[in-house]
Amino acid sequence: MPRLVIHRLSMAHPGDVSALAALLDSGALAARTIRAVIGKTEGNGGLNDFTRGYFTQSLMHLLSRATGEAPESLVARIPCVLSGGTEGVLSPHFMVFAAEPGGGAEGLAIGTAFGPPVAPGDVGNDAQIARVAAATRAAMADAGIEDPARVALVQVKSPAGGPGLLLRSVAGGAMGAAFALGDVPAGAARGAALLKDLTLFSSRVSASAGVEVVRDEVVVLGTAPGWAPGLSMAVRPMADALDLAAIQSAFRAVGLPADPDVPSAQRPRIRAVLAKGEPDRGLTVRGQRHTMLGDTDLDAQRHLRAALGAVIASVAGDGRVFVSGGAAHQGPPGGGLIAVIAASS
Amino acid sequence: MPRLVIHRLSMAHPGDVSALAALLDSGALAARTIRAVIGKTEGNGGLNDFTRGYFTQSLMHLLSRATGEAPESLVARIPCVLSGGTEGVLSPHFMVFAAEPGGGAEGLAIGTAFGPPVAPGDVGNDAQIARVAAATRAAMADAGIEDPARVALVQVKSPAGGPGLLLRSVAGGAMGAAFALGDVPAGAARGAALLKDLTLFSSRVSASAGVEVVRDEVVVLGTAPGWAPGLSMAVRPMADALDLAAIQSAFRAVGLPADPDVPSAQRPRIRAVLAKGEPDRGLTVRGQRHTMLGDTDLDAQRHLRAALGAVIASVAGDGRVFVSGGAAHQGPPGGGLIAVIAASS
Amino acid sequence: MPRLVIHRLSMAHPGDVSALAALLDSGALAARTIRAVIGKTEGNGGLNDFTRGYFTQSLMHLLSRATGEAPESLVARIPCVLSGGTEGVLSPHFMVFAAEPGGGAEGLAIGTAFGPPVAPGDVGNDAQIARVAAATRAAMADAGIEDPARVALVQVKSPAGGPGLLLRSVAGGAMGAAFALGDVPAGAARGAALLKDLTLFSSRVSASAGVEVVRDEVVVLGTAPGWAPGLSMAVRPMADALDLAAIQSAFRAVGLPADPDVPSAQRPRIRAVLAKGEPDRGLTVRGQRHTMLGDTDLDAQRHLRAALGAVIASVAGDGRVFVSGGAAHQGPPGGGLIAVIAASS
Amino acid sequence: MPRLVIHRLSMAHPGDVSALAALLDSGALAARTIRAVIGKTEGNGGLNDFTRGYFTQSLMHLLSRATGEAPESLVARIPCVLSGGTEGVLSPHFMVFAAEPGGGAEGLAIGTAFGPPVAPGDVGNDAQIARVAAATRAAMADAGIEDPARVALVQVKSPAGGPGLLLRSVAGGAMGAAFALGDVPAGAARGAALLKDLTLFSSRVSASAGVEVVRDEVVVLGTAPGWAPGLSMAVRPMADALDLAAIQSAFRAVGLPADPDVPSAQRPRIRAVLAKGEPDRGLTVRGQRHTMLGDTDLDAQRHLRAALGAVIASVAGDGRVFVSGGAAHQGPPGGGLIAVIAASS
Repeated sequence: MPRLVIHRLSMAHPGDVSALAALLDSGALAARTIRAVIGKTEGNGGLNDFTRGYFTQSLMHLLSRATGEAPESLVARIPCVLSGGTEGVLSPHFMVFAAEPGGGAEGLAIGTAFGPPVAPGDVGNDAQIARVAAATRAAMADAGIEDPARVALVQVKSPAGGPGLLLRSVAGGAMGAAFALGDVPAGAARGAALLKDLTLFSSRVSASAGVEVVRDEVVVLGTAPGWAPGLSMAVRPMADALDLAAIQSAFRAVGLPADPDVPSAQRPRIRAVLAKGEPDRGLTVRGQRHTMLGDTDLDAQRHLRAALGAVIASVAGDGRVFVSGGAAHQGPPGGGLIAVIAASS
Repeated sequence: MPRLVIHRLSMAHPGDVSALAALLDSGALAARTIRAVIGKTEGNGGLNDFTRGYFTQSLMHLLSRATGEAPESLVARIPCVLSGGTEGVLSPHFMVFAAEPGGGAEGLAIGTAFGPPVAPGDVGNDAQIARVAAATRAAMADAGIEDPARVALVQVKSPAGGPGLLLRSVAGGAMGAAFALGDVPAGAARGAALLKDLTLFSSRVSASAGVEVVRDEVVVLGTAPGWAPGLSMAVRPMADALDLAAIQSAFRAVGLPADPDVPSAQRPRIRAVLAKGEPDRGLTVRGQRHTMLGDTDLDAQRHLRAALGAVIASVAGDGRVFVSGGAAHQGPPGGGLIAVIAASS
Repeated sequence: MPRLVIHRLSMAHPGDVSALAALLDSGALAARTIRAVIGKTEGNGGLNDFTRGYFTQSLMHLLSRATGEAPESLVARIPCVLSGGTEGVLSPHFMVFAAEPGGGAEGLAIGTAFGPPVAPGDVGNDAQIARVAAATRAAMADAGIEDPARVALVQVKSPAGGPGLLLRSVAGGAMGAAFALGDVPAGAARGAALLKDLTLFSSRVSASAGVEVVRDEVVVLGTAPGWAPGLSMAVRPMADALDLAAIQSAFRAVGLPADPDVPSAQRPRIRAVLAKGEPDRGLTVRGQRHTMLGDTDLDAQRHLRAALGAVIASVAGDGRVFVSGGAAHQGPPGGGLIAVIAASS
Repeated sequence: MPRLVIHRLSMAHPGDVSALAALLDSGALAARTIRAVIGKTEGNGGLNDFTRGYFTQSLMHLLSRATGEAPESLVARIPCVLSGGTEGVLSPHFMVFAAEPGGGAEGLAIGTAFGPPVAPGDVGNDAQIARVAAATRAAMADAGIEDPARVALVQVKSPAGGPGLLLRSVAGGAMGAAFALGDVPAGAARGAALLKDLTLFSSRVSASAGVEVVRDEVVVLGTAPGWAPGLSMAVRPMADALDLAAIQSAFRAVGLPADPDVPSAQRPRIRAVLAKGEPDRGLTVRGQRHTMLGDTDLDAQRHLRAALGAVIASVAGDGRVFVSGGAAHQGPPGGGLIAVIAASS
């Protein structure tokens, strides 16, 4: 029976996996127990962000040395979901999710699944939605979660699809997972609705896309029988990029005081902070004009990550926040969602 | 006897002063009472940010039509302190400070002063420090403030000085005002200490620099006899860019609940939110590495404004925050300061 | 009878019209003879490029002082076509086109026209094509050009239309002028073809769009009876962004040696260099992959202007090149066009 | 006896070494003959350009599989000199320099050398100059070149040194090699002169710096006895970024017609095009103001590479140009140098 363990590690640059190497070398972590990696690298988060591929290559070479398994094999069974862009106070880091021996009546569980290889351009459509929905169900089964209500968060990573398709691919991945959870009805979860009908969303889905993956990758986190207790997870929708109350609520729900921020003595209990958000398409936030969507020099999602990431970090008291832009169908329109995982006190 | 009135106005683009024109046309504001303008325009905040010059030209033409006074004369007597850069959720806006007839025992006062024309490159040195210190004293006298302890904030704008001198000019302006307030001792306030000895600072000085001004411009805000009551102002140092507690403290000090944010019913009482901050030169925030100072594509101050501005806006519940980077000698190193002005309830 | 005179002037910043003020003050140029201004300002060339509006405001205020006519009136009769972006070796400058007394049998002529005010979003469609076609015919008539074959170049500036519409507006303006010249047949010049059917183009049309204009503005240059001789103009299509031979051909066609560049003694004869180009959508230039269209940090048109502008400047021996991106329907796909005007030797 | 062979290869992204893998797999190239790699990756060319480290890691893993030698060993004996930034028409590519069996009376030779590991910050000073000078001499000896006059080009790569030191490190590497060649006298080649006395330069040195290297790496190309004929190399100084005549001269010197560009039938003979340049610090090019050094949004070297790279590519007829910014002490001030290698016809 398994016990979910999460290591939150820093990196000096996108090819630096020395913190993980040290854990493996010391015996504190066994490479074969690693189920997924979720991280934030210091690229620009866009089509030409190669920090994600660089990190993935470095990670898989390290794990290959530790396990004797070929990198090509590892990359096809361990999801490595990276979001580029550590604007503002955000700090490059990665979280290693391992299923160690142990177990209990019920606890936070992880499940993963990969879709089939994706042909270039085959994203942002009905096919991607179906592929990701199937992978989400497979990941739930892998975790031992039968009831979608017990899923806390689905993390999706899809191929970028090519120039002009990046945000469509994010949206397609989100819609597929939202449909699998029952948060969006079957008839509505269609390619034609992507990036258009923003009333269709799940506040439990976080999706991204990148050139460094060639298949849809899904990580499911939720409560399942047989897993050891010890980790708490909470997810909250955010109404907009200034939703300080929702952020505090997520931290408090896992037992962390946030008044206004998590006290330094409690911060080591934080295992993961994950968020999605995006610039409001109405071009205003709480009635005041923002300029994120019309800046020729600075990508809108870079604007957003810097802003939303800092608000969350100001509550966490820590810049290691996985915040990703392009939140269509992930949380309320113009807003997003936040997830916090903490060790029980 | 005067009464300080502050109008906080939005703009559709950097040349848009229509909100002020409407106030003047309606008679709600008399152009001759305007003493200073402080605003945030949507440029990049750097050497080639021309949104500030565009706004200044538009403003002075409007005031010229309203008063019959030449733009060249107006620009030499009404400080127009602009900070470029509305990254993230920040919203372009400007605050018009007017001294209307009225008065009382004691209240928030404004005073302004201009230094002499500055030769190119004559910034970031002893001469600038002396010039700005003298202008600060003149602005205090103009406001009727004798005791430096009664000064809440000195806002300084200096010429940019040329390529490579921008941050030195900001530092020199800050040091000059800090010296005039007595927050930095005379012997220490020297050009050689600029950008080097960051233990020298005032938490009541906000400085910036730009190509659109040719003389040092100073605005002093503080408490003086004879001015009408009705406005409260609080200033707080921030220890770092995540100092949520200090931000809430500033809002609460002017009587605005901030739990965690200012409730929507109270937000109309906000007259001005001004802040300074900068990327920590130790390359970490609370022990975690940040990437602001090594990004070839995105200016460090743009990173900072997006992050710090969002944290402040999340408490104010409003993106109209004047936040400016380059905070050397303005608040603690790696941190900065925040000022809030609100109408009494 | 008129004589076309072109003054090519430098500027120290986007609000600097002092070079023109000096010409007006000295009597070398009479303000009432000015027919159009075409220039290059140092913004980013995108939706949030306010350097164009700033220059236009500065220009119209100067001309208002010189003529006594209101700025609002001047801006509605003198086209001010600006392209933002002086990447690389490009140098900010503007060209003042004046029709002075004089005349002759036949010479280079200028004509201008304005369309009606454009509702937001009403660009990139059949309506814009019709509006610009009509304005082009009006400008031809204004110049005294009956035969479209005698038109050398049509310069179009249209409103930006709003977020996401900028390049559609450029395309619509180009198609309208191309149709008026007969370079694109009537049935083909439709909104549905914009940015799609790139086989539809004119190599005599240069279009741009910006937030600073509210009506379509058209300037026609060509040969007409009654105008004085003395200026030569040549226009050439460019096959791609490396078409050095076409560039040299344009210079040689107006009598300037270009072997490989215009000798310094001949450079003062250059009156205007105007070009259009864009990143090849096939993602290659001469078979080698380019990265212009997938760069999250650097706008594709900024890439293009830096590259193409430098190639042209290396032949001209001078960075004062009006080069504008977004060349759909202007010259061959992946290429563009170049126009040179020079004083006869 | 050796024969220098150069393969110029394209890449689909910075981790793509498949073109080299194909050469190795086919037997067309033996991995053990590879002496150096010089390439251009599609990053931003600055401190946070990780495309260079990504490529290096990918390359060394490939060579490790082909040779059985550890990547750590390969990276310490095969220089991999990468310049980030393929702005404009530039195309990502890399050149593999191999010394195959063969030989002759005299021909183009290659030699390489590595300096000792460099402590952080130990660049841009006398120590780096001495280190690089020693490595240059060692590389000359490795190539079999005794007379410095027979050196065509020294390519240097040094560690970046940390924030604010990048351009100092480039300058230090250049000065060290220039001193070793005798192009700068011993007394003048000092840390104090770096980036200051630009009259000290060599037109045969191309230097760069990056976070991905930890030691100074030097590649020398020149004529030496015993090497096979078959490759011609020419190097020319460029007076400024528009020096079209110098560029054509370099191509013609290796027997390639350039009138104005290399005809398509001759282009396959090109083996390498390498250049250095930088924005003129006088803020003008041929008397006209440029804006490269005051752009907050776009790095000056990105401006420069886009511009200069396009001018060179327009002559080569090919975007595969290794052009690198930061040319202090490399060619005349405000200019730079260009090197061309071609197969004999």
